[in-house]
Amino acid sequence: MTSDLDIYEKQGFAGNIGMGTKPALVIVDFLVGFTDPAHFGGGNILAAIAGTEKLLAFARAKTWPIAHTRVVYADDGSDCGGFTRKVPALRRLTETSPLTQIVPQLTPAPGELILRKRNASAFFGTELVGWLAARQVDTLVVAGCTTSGCVRATVIDSCSHNFRTIVALDCVGDRAQGPHEANLFDMKQKYADLMTNEEIETNS
Amino acid sequence: MTSDLDIYEKQGFAGNIGMGTKPALVIVDFLVGFTDPAHFGGGNILAAIAGTEKLLAFARAKTWPIAHTRVVYADDGSDCGGFTRKVPALRRLTETSPLTQIVPQLTPAPGELILRKRNASAFFGTELVGWLAARQVDTLVVAGCTTSGCVRATVIDSCSHNFRTIVALDCVGDRAQGPHEANLFDMKQKYADLMTNEEIETNS
Amino acid sequence: MTSDLDIYEKQGFAGNIGMGTKPALVIVDFLVGFTDPAHFGGGNILAAIAGTEKLLAFARAKTWPIAHTRVVYADDGSDCGGFTRKVPALRRLTETSPLTQIVPQLTPAPGELILRKRNASAFFGTELVGWLAARQVDTLVVAGCTTSGCVRATVIDSCSHNFRTIVALDCVGDRAQGPHEANLFDMKQKYADLMTNEEIETNS
Amino acid sequence: MTSDLDIYEKQGFAGNIGMGTKPALVIVDFLVGFTDPAHFGGGNILAAIAGTEKLLAFARAKTWPIAHTRVVYADDGSDCGGFTRKVPALRRLTETSPLTQIVPQLTPAPGELILRKRNASAFFGTELVGWLAARQVDTLVVAGCTTSGCVRATVIDSCSHNFRTIVALDCVGDRAQGPHEANLFDMKQKYADLMTNEEIETNS
Repeated sequence: MTSDLDIYEKQGFAGNIGMGTKPALVIVDFLVGFTDPAHFGGGNILAAIAGTEKLLAFARAKTWPIAHTRVVYADDGSDCGGFTRKVPALRRLTETSPLTQIVPQLTPAPGELILRKRNASAFFGTELVGWLAARQVDTLVVAGCTTSGCVRATVIDSCSHNFRTIVALDCVGDRAQGPHEANLFDMKQKYADLMTNEEIETNS
Repeated sequence: MTSDLDIYEKQGFAGNIGMGTKPALVIVDFLVGFTDPAHFGGGNILAAIAGTEKLLAFARAKTWPIAHTRVVYADDGSDCGGFTRKVPALRRLTETSPLTQIVPQLTPAPGELILRKRNASAFFGTELVGWLAARQVDTLVVAGCTTSGCVRATVIDSCSHNFRTIVALDCVGDRAQGPHEANLFDMKQKYADLMTNEEIETNS
Repeated sequence: MTSDLDIYEKQGFAGNIGMGTKPALVIVDFLVGFTDPAHFGGGNILAAIAGTEKLLAFARAKTWPIAHTRVVYADDGSDCGGFTRKVPALRRLTETSPLTQIVPQLTPAPGELILRKRNASAFFGTELVGWLAARQVDTLVVAGCTTSGCVRATVIDSCSHNFRTIVALDCVGDRAQGPHEANLFDMKQKYADLMTNEEIETNS
Repeated sequence: MTSDLDIYEKQGFAGNIGMGTKPALVIVDFLVGFTDPAHFGGGNILAAIAGTEKLLAFARAKTWPIAHTRVVYADDGSDCGGFTRKVPALRRLTETSPLTQIVPQLTPAPGELILRKRNASAFFGTELVGWLAARQVDTLVVAGCTTSGCVRATVIDSCSHNFRTIVALDCVGDRAQGPHEANLFDMKQKYADLMTNEEIETNS
């Protein structure tokens, strides 16, 4: 994508944001159903979960506000809509389905927020923005899967709400490498900084 | 992206949506500043504007509700935020700047909605959702630029609001071909149908 | 409030809206905890529940889309905020508390939407707007409690989203008569029509 | 409303919020059209404007973030909806109408945010929440008119977003005394603290 990169640079994209003074961590959809290629998994998602274990430990040590998201639809499908029309298999993600449980290595601790959502973005139709406002958060670090789906959608909304937005590079994964990389490119150009765990720790 | 496509198919993505009974057209950011590679333009944007001229004529003939978006910031930058931090050049897009004027070939007709926005999505911080609800719209056809930026963000929000979402293939453009194609792939898998002008006309 | 009424009339408030072609019913917070004056009940709430039984039967016969709301906070209070700071007793409204169960006479039928919310409005941080859009609803009939709290907040948001908004007069109740009447006055002037069950049936 | 007050107290309403560490001021709709009883004015609105002059001077001295709202509809009415259906006279509030200009004694200073809105709440369809997030605001002080309309709607949304919400008692006005007082009662019970200018200054 050399020529692509050229025009972005020439037009002044990819400005540096940096960490603010009050970060929070949101972990998007690291659910059992996204660890298995027979359901919604594949690619580098397992590696991203391993990276997130470390980031979560760091965030807890720093007492950052921490939120986890789950995709959950009503058992009778009464809250299904555009997303499930496009991806009908999502309808299996009901409250008690094993597929919608957060992976054990990232089990939420008491006091951490668990958001149920029906769409890609962790902000859409949820209490996330008010929860961040209540904590005077200025920086949202985003981990989760998939990079090209719910992470990307969450990052756009985070930027639109004017939070400094950091994509945790070691902590986002996708079922396929092409969309993973293409979306990292887009997010870096327009909405977020990309940082490794090491860079996040150094800058916090 | 053969292997990428394989896993999406296997997991049941890219379900067909189809046109509903009450479509609307939103034309995203076809502004003078996006026609010039020295500002935010380049790639296939001019071709997409030409395609949109035809689609707009069709939509008017069908009396679809039609909305146009502009990116507009306050002269003093008081409403700038996350997006302008990442892309500082956007701050030049003020109300009277030549860069923020809709291109002449797509000049809004009386009664068509003109949305001013500060972020990528045409829904974020605007009156779009209420305007669609007032017209009982069930299908949103999206044209505009860039495919990898404001079109993608608008399409995600449209899907989240449960509108049948159609990306008008002849009518979306980007400054660079790689992100254009990568985002068409993502949108087709998760949020929208892709249709040519001919397919839109046939199905309306 | 004679003189109050005079200035509203003179300034052109309280325009008539009327029922549209595609109504939905939302029943706000008719929960066990709101039937008991020892918790959040009192006033005319029981009478409003009785009125809502009739309206619900009518809406089901007409196959209107029907949504019910519950106020539900996390067991550990992780999603509490501004509302619970002002009314700390609300924190007891957790998923399995008897207080947050919908009253038996209004038990949701399969396929009816059940919204969990943390704030006054049924729209805030919920999937309501997308659920209405998916059904091309143009009219929202609002029942529930309290008139001066969650009903009022829901009605404002419904009007802002451009739904024709009808307050079901026989079906809204409050713990206290003064706020009940004052809020009916405000809603009639600015956001909604007030209709009895009989008027709703006649106009549907 | 003695008996009304009794049940609210018994049920634990009207908890004290207090000022946080990072307040902002929003001044709602103090427009020329709301100063004249022949349009939308009357009651104690002029007194509230006088009170707001003092509060605005204080907020500027403290360098609080300051936002002003205007109600503005498109000249061709393309963005009119539920609110204008109920109050048709609002349609006269267009960008260049003398009625929609902020009163001269409260003229925004450079860098203060000016929000154009089409509905009651200053949050609905505007960039307000992101602007507050960008400034890590935890407390929103609300002045403006009318108490029973746009102030009340803004206060509900502010509380829902978890901002500590303060109604500036000397700075809110209404065309009629009954709704003014009834809405102060509701807001105090459920969403906000009521403070005089003196109390705001003492607690800041």
